[in-house]
Amino acid sequence: MPQLSQQSYIAGRWVSPTGPEFTAQNPVTKAMLATYASCQETEAEQAMQAAATAATVYRSKTKDEIALFLNTIADQIEELGSTLLEICNEECGLGLPRLTGERGRTTGQLRAFAELVSEGNWVQASIDTAQPKREPLAKPDLRKMLRPLGPVVVFGASNFPFAFGTIGGDTASALAAGNPVVVKGHPSQPATNELFAHAIDKAIAKNGMPAGVFSLLQGNTIELGTALVQHPNTQAVGFTGSLKGGRAIMDVAAARPSPIPVFAEMGSINPVFIASDALATQGSTIVENLADSVCMGTGQFCTSPGVVITVKGTDFANALSKILTDKPRGVVLNKRIGESLQSGLQALASHAEVSWLSDVNIVNEDVFSPPNAVFATSAQAFINDPSLQEEVFGPATLVVDCDNANQMAAVAKSLSGNLTATVHATEKDVDQAAELFNVLEQKAGRVIMNGFPTGVEVCPSQHHGGPYPAGSQASATSVGSDAIVRFARFVSYQNLPDALLPSALQNSNPDTLMRKLNGRFNTEVIS
Amino acid sequence: MPQLSQQSYIAGRWVSPTGPEFTAQNPVTKAMLATYASCQETEAEQAMQAAATAATVYRSKTKDEIALFLNTIADQIEELGSTLLEICNEECGLGLPRLTGERGRTTGQLRAFAELVSEGNWVQASIDTAQPKREPLAKPDLRKMLRPLGPVVVFGASNFPFAFGTIGGDTASALAAGNPVVVKGHPSQPATNELFAHAIDKAIAKNGMPAGVFSLLQGNTIELGTALVQHPNTQAVGFTGSLKGGRAIMDVAAARPSPIPVFAEMGSINPVFIASDALATQGSTIVENLADSVCMGTGQFCTSPGVVITVKGTDFANALSKILTDKPRGVVLNKRIGESLQSGLQALASHAEVSWLSDVNIVNEDVFSPPNAVFATSAQAFINDPSLQEEVFGPATLVVDCDNANQMAAVAKSLSGNLTATVHATEKDVDQAAELFNVLEQKAGRVIMNGFPTGVEVCPSQHHGGPYPAGSQASATSVGSDAIVRFARFVSYQNLPDALLPSALQNSNPDTLMRKLNGRFNTEVIS
Repeated sequence: MPQLSQQSYIAGRWVSPTGPEFTAQNPVTKAMLATYASCQETEAEQAMQAAATAATVYRSKTKDEIALFLNTIADQIEELGSTLLEICNEECGLGLPRLTGERGRTTGQLRAFAELVSEGNWVQASIDTAQPKREPLAKPDLRKMLRPLGPVVVFGASNFPFAFGTIGGDTASALAAGNPVVVKGHPSQPATNELFAHAIDKAIAKNGMPAGVFSLLQGNTIELGTALVQHPNTQAVGFTGSLKGGRAIMDVAAARPSPIPVFAEMGSINPVFIASDALATQGSTIVENLADSVCMGTGQFCTSPGVVITVKGTDFANALSKILTDKPRGVVLNKRIGESLQSGLQALASHAEVSWLSDVNIVNEDVFSPPNAVFATSAQAFINDPSLQEEVFGPATLVVDCDNANQMAAVAKSLSGNLTATVHATEKDVDQAAELFNVLEQKAGRVIMNGFPTGVEVCPSQHHGGPYPAGSQASATSVGSDAIVRFARFVSYQNLPDALLPSALQNSNPDTLMRKLNGRFNTEVIS
Repeated sequence: MPQLSQQSYIAGRWVSPTGPEFTAQNPVTKAMLATYASCQETEAEQAMQAAATAATVYRSKTKDEIALFLNTIADQIEELGSTLLEICNEECGLGLPRLTGERGRTTGQLRAFAELVSEGNWVQASIDTAQPKREPLAKPDLRKMLRPLGPVVVFGASNFPFAFGTIGGDTASALAAGNPVVVKGHPSQPATNELFAHAIDKAIAKNGMPAGVFSLLQGNTIELGTALVQHPNTQAVGFTGSLKGGRAIMDVAAARPSPIPVFAEMGSINPVFIASDALATQGSTIVENLADSVCMGTGQFCTSPGVVITVKGTDFANALSKILTDKPRGVVLNKRIGESLQSGLQALASHAEVSWLSDVNIVNEDVFSPPNAVFATSAQAFINDPSLQEEVFGPATLVVDCDNANQMAAVAKSLSGNLTATVHATEKDVDQAAELFNVLEQKAGRVIMNGFPTGVEVCPSQHHGGPYPAGSQASATSVGSDAIVRFARFVSYQNLPDALLPSALQNSNPDTLMRKLNGRFNTEVIS
């Protein structure tokens, strides 16, 4: 097991930055944990310079070398054994069963990207062969594929310490695409971050990768994040977190002399619509399952259902409230989330058009252990006040009471961007469901029938993203294999000899890729 | 032939805006042409409201309905006959042969997008079937495809009055993807814009398309463009033009309450590297062809070669200058471009490290008819001064004189983003070419061997875009079939019954698409 040193990791070196100190807190025992120091501009500069140097080497690695590197990282994470789970649980309080599952998802993601890279079709190879005798002008040979962007900065998230942390989906997909990554570790989980850096350090050594291919900068200052986003070597940013944080990063990136893409997955209220016949015939099952979805992970999922829309909404809300009040309270990840949740609950509770259906006085309550909260409002109030669409991150949901199906449709039309939108409907409700989905697919990245938004399947057909404010780039997904394309861009090669082309574009199709050859997909060799 | 009315076209109505008037000028005869009035916020509001209303209808059209619409527009453009060519030639002076070719490219683009849409694979359908018995959790059915973004604003360009004008590649690809389009017509060619609107108007009527699917707002004010980009209904922007204009639009879009993507294709200097053996053995051919590329279209192509890098660069520059001085001068599109070019030439001419190899005094010259200009500088001066990488739009090129191959590589590394980068090399130069391409593919959207950047083939493997400042989104292409994906985003459908899915995702694969089914490409039916 690596000894924890409370350091940051820059291109193979363990360093002790001299910025402001910060201390993570165990949200269950309230114990203060080890103290780390924030990296500053100096460390950002070192990491980004090393990343740029590594980029030219790393982008030239074969797909099998990159795949092996990713698999080795997964192996090394497993080598960390139960220490990783225990250290992380001290920092996040999510519990060992959840963390064991999330570790499996994280190593699974790495291995899935390794397989994707090794299989090779993700580069979307396209070839148009030359027509030298075409009139009036000869047609050149053009071949196109996705190529790495260059150094990527990733901001680790706290709500998935493994799956969206230091070596979570953003880092894994950026590395898979052939880019060096500099991670700003989440300050709630510095020891977890450090353990991952040890695992990656070993994988770099075992695979002979350039040192600058990965750095971990610990820190809790806005200045560090800003320096990384502003650095001229940075070519893209991955972020999972709050709308406020994500928008700040978007604004910094857009104001650069040379703007860069930001792939931010931010807040979402994940509306759940319940049509009349579904409510009448399956209401009791839906309310039970919805309560589970609201409370899952103490509501700290970006897909947590924050709004439920139905006719007779108030009755439904009372039933939901009864179940949620009986459920044990969870624990939030850190004090900041707890405080932000408390102020979100207070804002809803004091809203003139919103009623809180639980008999709870949150003043002076333990901010780490929030109530499972149900609010109710009218469709008109919801449509009139966009502030009711702001995410309240935690186990809280707002039931929107509609007079009829038309009003449900009006609520759908009033929505801003979301990660998901769900409709519960029976066969009798199918026309209403069709109408709702027509609107909702314009508002969300994923639409769901008779299910719940929590539980994000990791597979090629997953789209975890959505129109702003759910995501910064609606077409980008941060979950599933297509997450890799965020960190690559197309390059066309005109009239290059075979020997100078990447293997994916060579005549002999050495990687046996499914290529678009003169506009048609096949695995043909070019003679 | 439609009567020209000097109006704008909003969702099927011809309107007379009351904003500032502007008058196009024939750049050859200098005659002032018809006067148009600028649309203002009122018209922007009307067009964007109509576009939003049309969006829900138009996105539900079948792929064959959209394909037919695009083909009908192409037919209607041809129906405009020689009037279109003559009117446009008055406004742009590009000449009838060039405009005839460009009309063919424009109708060809429309028909190519029609074929692409009709074939259907552009939606990138992906299906992961359910595994209800999977442990520990059932796997849902997930299906994903590209869906339209919603209303798109397109800024017409002046240098391709047809191919990137009112119904050029941006408009065609946005319509093909299923989005309504509002065009801000380029103020240099209002009559041409108006003719296209008549053609589209007829195609809308013939195909029963919703009126708001297309609007043309004539205007020459910054306020009109800003109002369109800021309008909450606008979901994306397409732009071809100057870096200054493109960046202004990017900044407005990024500052919106809800930021939207901007696909701007902006300036580029399109470096051409000539390796030693190529220079020695093919120098005279290269210099002749390069001179043609520099002068083509009076240098008013975004792929015009603005920088040439070689050893013995000064000798090469003198030879190039001799040829270019002997070539007839061209005519630029409008006074603004001529004035901007003149000040660009003056800036280079007065640069301490740059010499102008032509014996020309541009003061008091006709701004419409610029000299074909060759400048020379040293590699070190080029590397030291980023201002020498600013595009001079017109028939001008800067020869960078290097001491050796290492210095050529250093120049390559110093480059910012470009649309293209070219290397001329023989078999003896192949190692140097490989080294240069390794760097240049990190700087450009298209790399070219032994060719010239002008002449952008329209085909699936074309990538016409590049890192900033060449493009706002390096992975986006504005030429070729993949231009369509800019105006669509992925939506996942979870557990939706077959009847509620788009046809591309239905079990029976009614469109016979090549789909990614459980991670593998095939055209299978799901039983």
